[in-house]
Amino acid sequence: MSYPTGTVPGMTSNSYHATVERLWAAAEARDWAAYADCFAEDFVCEMPQTRERVFGRDRWVRFNSEYPGDWHVDVQRIVADDDGAVSWAHVHIGDHLETGISFFTFDDAGRVATLKDFWPEPYEPPAGREHLVERY
Amino acid sequence: MSYPTGTVPGMTSNSYHATVERLWAAAEARDWAAYADCFAEDFVCEMPQTRERVFGRDRWVRFNSEYPGDWHVDVQRIVADDDGAVSWAHVHIGDHLETGISFFTFDDAGRVATLKDFWPEPYEPPAGREHLVERY
Repeated sequence: MSYPTGTVPGMTSNSYHATVERLWAAAEARDWAAYADCFAEDFVCEMPQTRERVFGRDRWVRFNSEYPGDWHVDVQRIVADDDGAVSWAHVHIGDHLETGISFFTFDDAGRVATLKDFWPEPYEPPAGREHLVERY
Repeated sequence: MSYPTGTVPGMTSNSYHATVERLWAAAEARDWAAYADCFAEDFVCEMPQTRERVFGRDRWVRFNSEYPGDWHVDVQRIVADDDGAVSWAHVHIGDHLETGISFFTFDDAGRVATLKDFWPEPYEPPAGREHLVERY
């Protein structure tokens, strides 16, 4: 990643960006020790679409390590600032593509403190806007 | 927004952050001239869930100004870096809550060049992870 001349990205943002890269790489590698290391012990994940909540790093690591299917992660974008980070990831499970969007906050040690996780699914567009859009 | 001591956020990120704040405020105010001003003329929006694409600022402004319902925007989070920005917004339509997640890139003039727009919907959680989660 390169920055335009004259801009000085915050140290903190860089570290958040690196942590999100590292946790996705660890998940893809099934390196659950490295994955756990990215999260605070009292980490909390919320999934607003299902209204599920996972308390604690240990449960979260199990949630992911037990997740069924031969899934593979392809990170599309990470955006980080001084308050946190977001990732947009493609997760391939065979021919099926899932999209995961994750909003992270961090503790003072730079470990993930909270995650809001979204998994948007395909749907049919509502009628009435065909004059403004094309399908791809 | 305040920054921790010792971090220097990039000028560019701040400007992207401000533009995303401005475009949501303009949408909420139905100030379509101010809204249009945030977008490049050859702006493109893609909605991966419906595989819809909107070409051009004019169509995008119409898409939004014609959007049905008495919707109101409550921005939850904006994250910006030197490459772009993301917003997470609640859109209230009466008692109904929609969640919009938007990944933005910008042109050299700082106007929005591209948008990938996601609208995750509620769904029932899959069985088999009840031992790790609670519902809220």
